[in-house]
This record gives sequence, structure tokens and C-alpha cells, in this order.
Amino acid sequence: MSMDRLLEKIAALKNPTVAGLDPKLSYIPEHLRQAAYAAYGKTLEGAAEAIYAFNCGLIDALCDVVPAVKPQAAYYELYGWPGVRALARTIAYAHKKGMFVITDGKRNDIGATMEAYADAHLGETEVEGEYFSAFGADALTVNGYLGIDGIAPLLRVCLQHDKGIFVLAKTSNPSSGELQDRTLSTGETVYRILGEHCETWGRELPGKYGYSGVGAVVGATYPEQLRELRRALPHTFFLVPGYGAQGGGAKDVAPGFDDSGMGAVVNSSRAILCAWQKTDRPGEEYALAARAEAIRMRDEIVECVGVPTLNEIM
Amino acid sequence: MSMDRLLEKIAALKNPTVAGLDPKLSYIPEHLRQAAYAAYGKTLEGAAEAIYAFNCGLIDALCDVVPAVKPQAAYYELYGWPGVRALARTIAYAHKKGMFVITDGKRNDIGATMEAYADAHLGETEVEGEYFSAFGADALTVNGYLGIDGIAPLLRVCLQHDKGIFVLAKTSNPSSGELQDRTLSTGETVYRILGEHCETWGRELPGKYGYSGVGAVVGATYPEQLRELRRALPHTFFLVPGYGAQGGGAKDVAPGFDDSGMGAVVNSSRAILCAWQKTDRPGEEYALAARAEAIRMRDEIVECVGVPTLNEIM
Repeated sequence: MSMDRLLEKIAALKNPTVAGLDPKLSYIPEHLRQAAYAAYGKTLEGAAEAIYAFNCGLIDALCDVVPAVKPQAAYYELYGWPGVRALARTIAYAHKKGMFVITDGKRNDIGATMEAYADAHLGETEVEGEYFSAFGADALTVNGYLGIDGIAPLLRVCLQHDKGIFVLAKTSNPSSGELQDRTLSTGETVYRILGEHCETWGRELPGKYGYSGVGAVVGATYPEQLRELRRALPHTFFLVPGYGAQGGGAKDVAPGFDDSGMGAVVNSSRAILCAWQKTDRPGEEYALAARAEAIRMRDEIVECVGVPTLNEIM
Repeated sequence: MSMDRLLEKIAALKNPTVAGLDPKLSYIPEHLRQAAYAAYGKTLEGAAEAIYAFNCGLIDALCDVVPAVKPQAAYYELYGWPGVRALARTIAYAHKKGMFVITDGKRNDIGATMEAYADAHLGETEVEGEYFSAFGADALTVNGYLGIDGIAPLLRVCLQHDKGIFVLAKTSNPSSGELQDRTLSTGETVYRILGEHCETWGRELPGKYGYSGVGAVVGATYPEQLRELRRALPHTFFLVPGYGAQGGGAKDVAPGFDDSGMGAVVNSSRAILCAWQKTDRPGEEYALAARAEAIRMRDEIVECVGVPTLNEIM
């Protein structure tokens, strides 16, 4: 099962983190941008080419340290179809280098439409009996606001193609409480309801290490809720944003982990992508700087939560 | 303001409906598919070309009857980047024919990431001081689960580029109640909270006919909730899915309208796209069949809710 593959990668590299590939043009060193513009002009195509080159350098530098990458779909759509092509190429390149890929698309819809998203991002697209992988990620972030009608099509595709999903529960942003923290008449919060749906939906995709193919997104910026949900949702693996640039530290992410140092994967985007700028290194060393930051983050988190091990007892 | 432009188009054509462009390959007549495959092969490119040709024929046939089209992003992403290119080309073609375009993407994220979605789908993309329209729709559907952090970036882009959004409130699917109908400890339902957020957020984008640039998605399959929200949200224009194939009829959508016959635009996708199949007409007449169905739908709804007029008093 897809989530099992992620857990195995995490255990093999002893690193429960994921590098977010949110490539704003301003993060990309001059030499890569100029090379792309020279070939494709200062256009959407040129920008997309610069992004792809930037990502390839990062993946080369990170693939033996970090188990997974998480491209954020918005930063590719920003550059139109050439940007979306760069997303597909980035996913393929990360796979070639052995990385697990989580597309952060927060997709949501119902029935046949959700099935189209699932086939596009995780499964295969049929064209007159021929099958193509449009994007081919290993997991996709999704928004569960529409209920099981929006999740069931994903579960079918995940089961068939060995893929997983992460459902938004408690997001890392300041206003996430506007809806998510509201208390229902039954006494539960909205984020808790979404979390419990993950447990229910996850029964369709059981994993051999106790965590199902239905994960949840729970932000590092709300450690209390992270702790509550970790206890309440024993079969739900967490994708934890908000570490680093958004203010969460190793102590804040710790409550997302179980006693084996498993149970969560922590995302960092800007701190890794912009490491060369933050440490005043020349643009040519952006990948080395990213690798150094990824190692620093790994060590900080592992020191706090322990070396992740596969708990096969559960 | 963008929503004003939609209202003016609706009043000019006396038609409060929108044609959903959800082009599954099986809806596309043989002659269009074969022509595309002959040029591009039975590939994602070939499928995307067939979709674009299909959409152009529909837009030609509908543009003097229907004020707006609503391409559903999932059906374009399904065909990878060539499909996403077909989405951009479809939007451009619809604009050339004078139609208002709502991209149904249900996008959601926070801060800079949501800004990237907003710039991509509604605004402009900067590449080294040059500006490009990546997709350029007039409005985008969005999911408000993340709160104002996910909406504020959209409001800025809408204000700057004269665009609008539709926030999911009560969706048309059977399981929409799993979360949306839950009652909070304060006595309100989750969908009502989202609806009231639309009123609040909409104050940033006031419109001259009383409806703001922040609309809501409210399904035709829940006429009681539609009625409740129409009364509660006087400045929020509704995008109403669920008419036709999902079971809602003219009487079900009627509660979404105000006394001027305004206040809502009703979507139909499959019934229009597949009209040629449902009426056993040859594939060559698919656009004529779509036009006939669009006129039938217009007449049915207008008979029930009245001819839409711009209420300038509000």
C-alpha cells in the first residue's frame, strides 16, 4: 500500500520529513533562470523550464537524504500549461531518483469529477483503450468538505494503483479555526470530525504497519490539536505542514508522532528551497545549501522524536 | 465588478443558466475524436485536441443563448498538460465569443499559495516584469475550509482584475450533509457559516446590482437550504449545480432566485453536452442538440422564476 511505501522510505533514510517543492521564480538562482530564458524567452515556457531545472537540482541533492517531495500544484498552474507540464516532469524525475511524491493539490469534487482528479493525479487516463499516467503521484492532498462522495472515487483509485491521500483536518494557517475549530452540537470540533472520517475512510485501505492509505493534514502550528488527533486517530498517518517558515519547530511537530517515532511526515518548503539565500551562498550552491538544511531539519526532528522505526506489531 | 458583468450578460440574454463544459471523451462524437487522433494519435494530446474541438463547437452554438460556460478543471487535468492547455484555449475561445467563464476548480490553500492559484486562474503571472494570463477565467470556484487566509488573496486579485469567486456552501451531492449539515454548538449549520462568510468576505467586492464578487455554490438538490440561504445572504450570488442529471428541476432551483428573477445562475453539464446522445441525433449535430437543450432549459427555468432583470434599487 502506498502509505506503507512512504513509511518504508522514511525508515530506510531515518528521516520523517518531506521537501515541499513550491518553486517561486524568486527562489531560483539567476544562472538557472537566464539559461531557461535564453532557450525559451521570458515567457511562461521559460519560467516553467527554470522551475524544472531548479527542481531537478534539488531532487539530485536531496534524494539520498529525504524520502519524499511534495510539489504544490498552485506554483505550477501559475505558469499555465507549461508550468503544469513542469509538474508532470518533476514527478517523473523524482520517481526516477526513488523519491515518494505527494502532490499538494487539495483537490475536491464529487462522483465522476473526483474520479477524474483521482485518475489524473494518482491513477491512469484511458484514451480509446490505451492507458497513460497524466501526473502519477504516489499521494494527493484532498479537501473533505464534500463528504464521502468526494472521497470514495479516490479510495477506488488508491486501491487499484497502490496510492494514498491526505485529507485536510486542521490546517496550519492562523484562520484555520474560523471553521475547523467550531464546536458541533455533539461537542466535537469540525477538524475532529474530518479526522474521524479519515479513520473510517481508511478502513478501505489498510496498511501493514497500522497506518491506512488515508492520511490527514494537521499543522505543526497547533501542537495541542496535533496531540489530540494523534491519540484519537491511531490508523491515520499525518502530513504536518507549518514547520520552519510558518513558525513550528521540532517540539511543535513532536506530538504528531507515535512511540516508534512514526506516524507523521513533516514538510518544509521555503527553508529548504531558499536555504542558499538565507545562508548567503552563491546561487550555484543552491542544491548544496538545500541538502544542508534538509540534514539539519532531519537531525533536529529525529533528536526530538527519535529515529523512526516500523512498528510491525500494530 | 466581475459579478456585475455576469448579471448583465444574464439580463441581456434573459437566461440565468451556465453550460458546464465537463468533456468526457465518451461525450465527444466519433468524427471529432477520429480527426484529433489522426493528427495527434490516440494519446493525451489527441484526446485534448478532441476536447478543444468539441468545446469550440459547443461555444459557437451556445454563445448567443447562454451567458456563461463553466469548464470543470478535473476533466482537463485528466489529460495531463495537453488537457490543461485545452482548458486555457477553451477559456480564450469562450471569451472571444463574448461568454463569461467560471473555472470550476474548487481551489483552496493559504497565503502565497492561494495567491498563486488566484493569479493563475483569475489574474496575471509575472515573469521578470512581463505579465501573462495563464488561464484568465472571470470567476473561480473555491473551497473555504481553510478560512479567510485562503480567501483574502483571492479578494485582492478579484479587486485588481475585476474577477469573482464562488465559495462552496451547500454542495449538491448526497453526502454533502456529512459535514455541511452538522449543527454547531451555537445552533448554526456548517453550510450556513460558510454562507455567512461569503456575505462578510463580499463586503470587499461590492457590486452595483447588490450582489458582491463573492458568490456561493448551493446545490439544486437541496431546495430548502437554497431557500434558507437566499433569504439569509442578500448580497451573495449563487451558482446552482445539480439541475438535470443530478435530479434537480426548475422548481428545485427556484428558491435560489430573488424577486427580480436574479440572484442565481443554474448550471447544466451532462444534459447539454450529451444532448445529441440522449435525443439519438447523429454526432455531427451535437452542437445543434446542445443548443436545443440549452434553450429548453432556459425556457423551463424562466417560466418558473421569471425573466431575470437587473434590480438597480438594491
